[in-house]
Amino acid sequence: MDAESTAASKGALVDLDEATCWSLLGPAGIGRLSWTSGGKPFVVPVNYRVSDGRLEVVTAAYSAIARECDDAFVALEADSTDAEHHAGWSVLVQGTAAIDFQHPSSDGPRPWPAGVRRQLLVITPASVTGRRLT
Amino acid sequence: MDAESTAASKGALVDLDEATCWSLLGPAGIGRLSWTSGGKPFVVPVNYRVSDGRLEVVTAAYSAIARECDDAFVALEADSTDAEHHAGWSVLVQGTAAIDFQHPSSDGPRPWPAGVRRQLLVITPASVTGRRLT
Repeated sequence: MDAESTAASKGALVDLDEATCWSLLGPAGIGRLSWTSGGKPFVVPVNYRVSDGRLEVVTAAYSAIARECDDAFVALEADSTDAEHHAGWSVLVQGTAAIDFQHPSSDGPRPWPAGVRRQLLVITPASVTGRRLT
Repeated sequence: MDAESTAASKGALVDLDEATCWSLLGPAGIGRLSWTSGGKPFVVPVNYRVSDGRLEVVTAAYSAIARECDDAFVALEADSTDAEHHAGWSVLVQGTAAIDFQHPSSDGPRPWPAGVRRQLLVITPASVTGRRLT
């Protein structure tokens, strides 16, 4: 099989508009929070919730997220992939994160790990982009 | 339900040793490649393969990955989550990435999108860490 016929049997990668990205993010979901510390990128899975055009993540008071992401430029990525059909989408939200100390700890998306988790990290998007592979 | 009983019904987050991390990464899989550009973290899903203790990702010659990740410190995260049981694991490989121009383009993990993708990005791990939520 030559390069052209291989390409023809594969999907196209198309950019998604912002409305589609928000629709794919939904009201809540699992994403990967990424930040930079000491010049190194870090990525951890988180449970997020969308509220008033911002993303909320609840974290432990003394976690790496609370320590590193307050007042930092971060990214939250969400995706869905279909290994059988080699299809899927991904959305990348980049923006400034801040710990909201006023927010009641009982509210917000619930983290899965046990322990006292009291801090709400709020990401205000500066850029929302996405791609779909069909 | 008070705070203690809430905690008791939730899982514990435990660190994984490096051998367990490699075992979870397996020979190949889907991960999220993260890098920093202009002070902003970027995250995209990629198809990776493990080879001789390094991670390989095939990318397009003129993609953001090829442009930004060559000779850069990057991270590749893989995870598996079970929404029903609020369980899962995540592995984070951090290291230096480099385009391997000598590598034949027909080899390496196959990217899903169509198009001519000729460059192999090789990540040499500096740190392999992981956590499991049980």
